[in-house]
Amino acid sequence: MSVSGVKAVLFDVFGTVVDWHGTMHREIDIFRGQKNATFDTGTFVTAWRTAYRQGLADIRAGKAPKISNRLVYRAGLEKLLAEHKVKNVSEAELEHLSRIDQRFQPWSDSIAGITRLKKKFITGTLSNGTLVALTNMAKNAGLPWDVIISADLLGAHKPAPEAYLKTATLLDLNPEEILLGAAHNYDLKAAQSNGYKTGFICRPLEHGPNGKNETEAEGGWDIISDSIEELAEKLGA
Amino acid sequence: MSVSGVKAVLFDVFGTVVDWHGTMHREIDIFRGQKNATFDTGTFVTAWRTAYRQGLADIRAGKAPKISNRLVYRAGLEKLLAEHKVKNVSEAELEHLSRIDQRFQPWSDSIAGITRLKKKFITGTLSNGTLVALTNMAKNAGLPWDVIISADLLGAHKPAPEAYLKTATLLDLNPEEILLGAAHNYDLKAAQSNGYKTGFICRPLEHGPNGKNETEAEGGWDIISDSIEELAEKLGA
Repeated sequence: MSVSGVKAVLFDVFGTVVDWHGTMHREIDIFRGQKNATFDTGTFVTAWRTAYRQGLADIRAGKAPKISNRLVYRAGLEKLLAEHKVKNVSEAELEHLSRIDQRFQPWSDSIAGITRLKKKFITGTLSNGTLVALTNMAKNAGLPWDVIISADLLGAHKPAPEAYLKTATLLDLNPEEILLGAAHNYDLKAAQSNGYKTGFICRPLEHGPNGKNETEAEGGWDIISDSIEELAEKLGA
Repeated sequence: MSVSGVKAVLFDVFGTVVDWHGTMHREIDIFRGQKNATFDTGTFVTAWRTAYRQGLADIRAGKAPKISNRLVYRAGLEKLLAEHKVKNVSEAELEHLSRIDQRFQPWSDSIAGITRLKKKFITGTLSNGTLVALTNMAKNAGLPWDVIISADLLGAHKPAPEAYLKTATLLDLNPEEILLGAAHNYDLKAAQSNGYKTGFICRPLEHGPNGKNETEAEGGWDIISDSIEELAEKLGA
């Protein structure tokens, strides 16, 4: 089996391990009710996430000053609240919502799957998220990572080769001793071309039932699965 | 209480959380017996640790090419084995001993103390060790860290201010929201001057019963304790 030399199983997190869309939808829907607001929750969530990603892209491209991801979430939120004329939002509410990524909930198979993998492999994240979000998320949700590796630690974002290669160096492993589990083909493609083993985990609801979801493995990945438990099973864990 | 705003409790690891000297002494003593070698175990351990620290210092000073900490341990070990004319050491034995830092055992109060602290605070390492050593050590010993922060991740070694300040930025906390627990006054001094809260944990056997041990708090630390459990108690965890 081509994955026999694997020593560490690392994961993309947002979408692959946690259901960011579901968590945002749930929290924003409750918030909308509390504020008697009339916006459409799904549209609001998509717009907020888009603003967040654009904010990060602008920072990385040098078009905007560097601020924390929390403040990028907050800027997008404040803009949307103003557009929808939602008033009487307290500072505490804004701060709480700006930390929403720390509360993203795992898919139902994630904890069980990681717990199984952990007995046989080093398990961890290889995420474009921040250390603080990933740490608090793990603590809130009970994700039992051995190690948390994030873009702000690496100083590199996937799919840049440095993100994969620096991670291997930090773990004192060869790239082929690491398997990346991800729901996104672009990530697996970059991991594979940098020597990693690859596991596709299909998440047909990542962007919600009406979202543009990635449901097909588009490369020669070592493992294709519908859950982290299935990935663990196929890795003999 | 001056520590009331603390949100994260981070630890120095080698000597503070784990008994590196005891682990090395035990493993080298067994190895000595297996090889029918006649060196003094205590002297050997001290020399190996000294060679390791010198090897790292030479790399940081640019006097030696950068290699992994594992290879620094290995170089010191091979030199000592040659000096003591210990022969018939296999490649597997050399590799195993060179990873000794992944097997350092916790002091008897460490796991219980961190487990208590974890319920109230983010717990983690702020160590000059490597991510791979700290990750495998935690996995082997069951140290339940929320997050592992290491010098190779930070690109800075304590007591350099960047090590403390970059850690605070990564955790999205102000320095005064972090308490550093350490058995070493120099580390607490640097942490304090960079705004951290401080907790001295006395480890009178860090360097073994005959070693040069640090047994006195030499600064105005916020908490002084004899164990991580006592530190947890004093932090109300």
